[in-house]
Formats: sequence, structure tokens, C-alpha cells
Amino acid sequence: MRSVSIIGVGCTKFGERWDASLRDIVAEAGFSAIEDSNVSGEEISALYVGNMSAGRFIEQEHIGSLIADYAGLARLHVPSTRVEAACASGGLALRQAVLAVASGYHDIVIAAGVEKMTDVSGGTAADALASAADREWECFFGATFPALYAMIARLHMRRHGTTREQLSMVAVKNHHHGCLNPIAQYQMEITHEKVMKSPMVADPLHVFDCSPLTDGAAAVILAPTDMAKKYCDTPVKILGSCQASDTLALHDRRDITTLDATVCAARAAFGQARIEPGQIDVAEVHDCFTIAEILAIEDLGFVEKGQGGKAVEEGMTSLNGKLPINTSGGLKACGHPVGATGIKQAYEITLQLRGEAKKRQIDDAEIGLTHNVGGSGGTALVHIFSR
Amino acid sequence: MRSVSIIGVGCTKFGERWDASLRDIVAEAGFSAIEDSNVSGEEISALYVGNMSAGRFIEQEHIGSLIADYAGLARLHVPSTRVEAACASGGLALRQAVLAVASGYHDIVIAAGVEKMTDVSGGTAADALASAADREWECFFGATFPALYAMIARLHMRRHGTTREQLSMVAVKNHHHGCLNPIAQYQMEITHEKVMKSPMVADPLHVFDCSPLTDGAAAVILAPTDMAKKYCDTPVKILGSCQASDTLALHDRRDITTLDATVCAARAAFGQARIEPGQIDVAEVHDCFTIAEILAIEDLGFVEKGQGGKAVEEGMTSLNGKLPINTSGGLKACGHPVGATGIKQAYEITLQLRGEAKKRQIDDAEIGLTHNVGGSGGTALVHIFSR
Repeated sequence: MRSVSIIGVGCTKFGERWDASLRDIVAEAGFSAIEDSNVSGEEISALYVGNMSAGRFIEQEHIGSLIADYAGLARLHVPSTRVEAACASGGLALRQAVLAVASGYHDIVIAAGVEKMTDVSGGTAADALASAADREWECFFGATFPALYAMIARLHMRRHGTTREQLSMVAVKNHHHGCLNPIAQYQMEITHEKVMKSPMVADPLHVFDCSPLTDGAAAVILAPTDMAKKYCDTPVKILGSCQASDTLALHDRRDITTLDATVCAARAAFGQARIEPGQIDVAEVHDCFTIAEILAIEDLGFVEKGQGGKAVEEGMTSLNGKLPINTSGGLKACGHPVGATGIKQAYEITLQLRGEAKKRQIDDAEIGLTHNVGGSGGTALVHIFSR
Repeated sequence: MRSVSIIGVGCTKFGERWDASLRDIVAEAGFSAIEDSNVSGEEISALYVGNMSAGRFIEQEHIGSLIADYAGLARLHVPSTRVEAACASGGLALRQAVLAVASGYHDIVIAAGVEKMTDVSGGTAADALASAADREWECFFGATFPALYAMIARLHMRRHGTTREQLSMVAVKNHHHGCLNPIAQYQMEITHEKVMKSPMVADPLHVFDCSPLTDGAAAVILAPTDMAKKYCDTPVKILGSCQASDTLALHDRRDITTLDATVCAARAAFGQARIEPGQIDVAEVHDCFTIAEILAIEDLGFVEKGQGGKAVEEGMTSLNGKLPINTSGGLKACGHPVGATGIKQAYEITLQLRGEAKKRQIDDAEIGLTHNVGGSGGTALVHIFSR
């Protein structure tokens, strides 16, 4: 099993990118990563793309070929693979790229993620997103993602005493981080009062508890660790790359206040990396809704089950806390172009470990973690990185 | 790079499966492969699923989680990954599964493919399939796949003297093979006259030049070659697993009568396997249209460019010919559930190499090849197998 490192990263501005198509933004992220890594196009031997639903959003499947084409790599006939696990598609692309390098089949590999969600052709974005849930047993009965996560939130509040204020604090913190991140979709501070005044989506979740619809793309370039220094003075080593599944429908789970896929993927990744949760210096976790960040902190093993809300309240996860979480602004404020999110998380952790996160840089970041979830937890990916 | 072998295979009946949903047929194929391989569910460490467009066909993305769920593997939290490259999604799933085993991250891995195309919710199947072409530069101008392949056929006929009869002979041969295959969608003989009397789709292609809409699923189980004998007396070794891309749009290609992605993937696979095209005993190639089989024979290096039609006419590719092609009936007669096709090809070659292909068994098959194409050649995969 060859060790794998990140030698370059790139990311577009996240937001409503009316100025650019899916092909434009993914090329922008890819070229930016290539420039960052000092590799030449001829050295790239494979491409992985995470994308959830271009088939529904822009009526375009076969995104692998499309992106190889617009990146100029189709002329070199570089193999290009689209992977999909709903909102975990980006993390999945990263893991498949890691496996491709680890296998020895490929050396220099790009993992990209992209989603174009703001000009949907036919239907609504919410309907396309609902296809990440169990269409037959959830959606046809009216459940959307805010509704599913609202049920999780209500049970978490009742069972563990998590408060409405603690939910807001996740959003307030992530919006603060977003203000420090030039690529973030929302660069504005919010307050608990503002969250509470925003429209109710699914009780107890208001609009400001939900991640937005976003256009965006991100890319990272991988190489075998023993070749990485050739391209890059500050490669970031991937210590763990793990993935787990769970039932597609929320109601089939053992317990809806724990995402078992996160628990399993995290345990496996910590085992692979041979480190403990307490050694993580910075993490990007999947805060598709505020309650999801609280679950993540618990399920990744950073705090005991039920203590996630309290940890946020006590500032543990703030920029100057013991374990800064979502320094990018997270899905909440940086934005959530579903296929791109998992790669953007790796982009942010790479910047932090290289000391290039500027206004949101944390001190002495040595080990980072990313956590990417598909649907209501049918898929989870955890990656652990070190400088 | 660990060597990888197939230790079990399964496939559903192909056709109009009104009796079964996507989740039913993929579970059917998976259980059949598990039974064939003698592995237990607990030993399976990863799952790859090729599926083109469930998002559009049945409004369901996140197929990886769905299939892990319905296979009983979500309870074990087995990582499950959907890959997509249009009609090459099955071959792509096989290759990613090969990489996963070769990487050392996983030992026993299932590669499955599935598509449910006959009860489409919203829009038409043809429209969903068109999303495998370049939506902006081909589909919006009215091009469908029969039209794109018709243009290829016309130029091939003009430049190389390929005849209308030779196109028919591909269909006639594959229908004959389909008659010998109990899982085939069409088990009926046809003639050149019948092809010519069938409705014109896009000149020169008639209905009987086109592969049909099909429901179906297939699965193969992989293991490291050094563990394969533990499960299976007759493992089939994967000697080469290669993939190439090309421009998404046909009009951007160097030459539309050659699929360069096929040429590149084949060259790489023959190199990896260290064998010559002349050593292949049996092949399943991507005959989405009759002209596509003729291109494939040429682009894979079995005959010179322009000699594909003649090779078919002279019987080279028949069951008793020098190189039997599409003994399953091919996409044309066995059917073409787009995400499943690449895995069904591996299923057929495995049966041939194990001597279990019954009425369509060829003598002394030692080395086989599969060839799977996405769109009009934006993606191609070539696998080489030996007994």
C-alpha cells in the first residue's frame, strides 16, 4: 500500500456563479490546483470527479469525459471517473484517487468535485437533492432533507438537552469563519436572534440552520509520498482514508441521533492513521444543517455522545478553541456545492497544514481531519492528513 | 500492485423486468455472485456499483448506499461507491474494484452494474440517455445517439466500403448468439431482410441496428489472486484493466471512424497483460449499434482499420470463427441496461473461460477481453482475463 500525499490544491469562489457553467468552474479549480502543484498536464495519469446530480441539475451525465475534455486532458486520453454518493461525492472522489495512487496503477492523480446548483433545468434543486434520500420510502411520503435532519435535531434536543441556542451557535461560528474566507459564499456575521427571525424550514430548523444552494468546484492533486517533494516543498500526507455505508432511509437506523457510518469511518481512519481523536488540530466536518455539526463532533469521537452542543457553546470548536471546526465557514457559510464539498474540505485542511489560511490560520496545525456525509448518513468518509 | 482475480459471478435475466425494481434486480445479481463465490457477507469489504442515470430514470441518486442497504451490507457499514461514465459505468465499476483490491485497502470486493430503464419517471429514456453526449453542443442541436452513430456509419461506409449487409450481419450474428443465452432479452433469429424492413431510426441505422432499452443487473466478486483459490476452483485472473477518455462531443475528434479512447485503452491493456490481440480467444465488445461492433474489432487491433465489416462477413467473429465476438448476444440481443453492460461482459467472459457457457461455449477459451464504451467514445474500458 503506497503512501499518498497532496501536492497541490485549488478552489473556485463559492456562491451563485451565474457567470460560469459547470465546465468553466471545474476547469478553473483544476488549473488552479495544477498551477499550485507544479505538475505538467502530461504527468497527470488519472482524474476523479465527485458530482452528485449534474444529470438532474443540468441534464448532463458522463461528467468524467466532459471534465477531461475541458481540462485539455481528453487529448491525452487520461482516464476520468465520476463518482457519486450524494453530498459525499467529493470525499468519495478523494478516496478513489487515493486508492488509484496506492494501487500503483497511477502516480499523479487529480481529485476534483463540482456542482452547479443555481440554474437548474426542470424541477427544483430541492427535488434533485431529495434523490439522495430513499425515494420510495422517504421522498414519496413528503420527507425532504430539512425534515429528516429536523427529526434528528428534535430527538437530540430531547434526549441530550441540546438547546436551540446551541444550534444557532454553530451557524454563528461558521458565519464568523466565513467572513475570514475569501471564497466563502456568505461573508457576513449573524446572531442567534437573526437565526430565530429567519423563516422556519422544518421545526426546529430555520433557514439559517441550513446550508445553501451553491455553485462551486475544488481540486486536489495527489502523488505517491516518495515523489511528492519533487513537486512541492510542503506536501500534505494522507494518513487515513476511510468510508462506510448505512441504510439509505433514516428510519431504518439503530438510532437516529448517531450517524453510524461516521462512527465506523472515523474509527477505521484513526486506526489506519494510528492516532487518537485528541491529536486532531483542525477539522472540516459536514454541517449541512447545524445539528449535523453537533452530531459530527460526537460521532467522530471529539466529545462524548450528547456533549456536542455544549462543546460548541463553550467555544471548543471556535477559531481560538481547542479544536477549531470548519475554519472555512463549513457548508453553512462557505457554501455547499454538494459534489465539491468533500474536496473543498481537503483544500481547507491543506491550507491550514501549510500555514496558508491567512486570517483564519490556526497556530501549529499539524494534523487535520475531513468528514463528508452523503444524504442523512447513508455514506460517510473520513480523511486524516498531516503536514 | 497486487494481482486480482474473479472468484464469483452473477447476472439477472435481461429484458423488461416489470416484476422487479432496481433494488430487486441488483440484489438478485449480487446474491447470485455471492453464492457462486462461496464468500460470506462478512468477508465483503467494499462494493462498487456502475449506474448511469438512476437519478433521471427513477429519481434516485446515492445508489451506493441504496445497494449496500438492500444487499444487507449497510448493517456491516461496507463502503459502497457508485461510479458513472454513461454506458461504460459497468466497466468503470469493475476497474475501480480492481484498483481497490490492487491498492491493498480491500480484499474481497463486489463490482456490480445495474440499470432500470423501462419504467422511466418523467421525460423519456432517450432523453436521459442523451445526457451521455455533450448536452450543450450536441443534444441541444437535436443530436441523439442513433444520429451520432449514423454519422459514424455513413463515413465508415464511404471511406472503407463497409456495406449495409455487413451492418446487418453484426445484428444477425448477435441475435443468433442471444438465442443460445438464457439471460438474453431477445432470443430470436433475425435476417438481413428483417433488419431492412424494421423502421429507419437514423439513416443508415434501422431499429435492428440499435441495442434496446433493458432492465438488468450483473455482479462479479474480486479477490487478490493469491487468495482466490481459497474460494473458487476456477478463478479468472485479470491480466489488464485500462481506461481512456476522449472529447465528449463527437465533432471534436481527430477522426470519427476511430474511437481513440478504445485504441488507447486497448494498447494499455495489451501492454499490461503482455499479450497480443491475436492471442485473444473470445471477446465481448460494445455493440450499442451494429457499426460500433465493426469499429471495435478494428480499434481493438483484431483487424486493420476498415476491415471490420469484411471480418464479420467472413465469419471471423461468429461462434465457430477465429475470434468469437459477443457470444452473450452483445448489447444488441442480450440487451443493454447501460450501467450493467460492462459487468455482464465480464460475467460472460468468466463463463467462457470456466467452460460454463453451455450452448454457446467456445472450445479451449484461455484468454478473453471485454470492451465497454461510454457515449460516442468519451470513455472506453478494456479488460483482459485469463483462466
